[in-house]
Amino acid sequence: MEIDKAFGEVLKQKRVHNSISQEELAYLSNLDRTFISMLERGKRQPSLKTIFVLADALETLPSQLISEVEKKLKL
Amino acid sequence: MEIDKAFGEVLKQKRVHNSISQEELAYLSNLDRTFISMLERGKRQPSLKTIFVLADALETLPSQLISEVEKKLKL
Repeated sequence: MEIDKAFGEVLKQKRVHNSISQEELAYLSNLDRTFISMLERGKRQPSLKTIFVLADALETLPSQLISEVEKKLKL
Repeated sequence: MEIDKAFGEVLKQKRVHNSISQEELAYLSNLDRTFISMLERGKRQPSLKTIFVLADALETLPSQLISEVEKKLKL
């Protein structure tokens, strides 16, 4: 699995787990909703700062998001 | 401290700990040496894939690099 795809799945799963919409995540992270959608579909990859902003909005640690991605990639 | 600066410090500390030069890290990660230098000085920020490629070249996990950054930022 591609890293972007794995990150997108982790992002969506965490957002759904937190019961928030893409619009709410976009608002909380001060990012554009369409960017959130593209990240979730693995069409864009996040920068370091975007990872930190998304983790904060999802009330988790950036390293936690990344370790979930590692699990999906079986690293 | 800025996230980019914190990542740069972590990257340099890990590279020096592994006793490899910027040239060697550039070779191992298939990235440009000047980009490595700018990352270490916090002048550029890495994308998700760059974080994974650098972690692999430094023989660590991406989540480990990110948690070191979190420690520097006291998250």
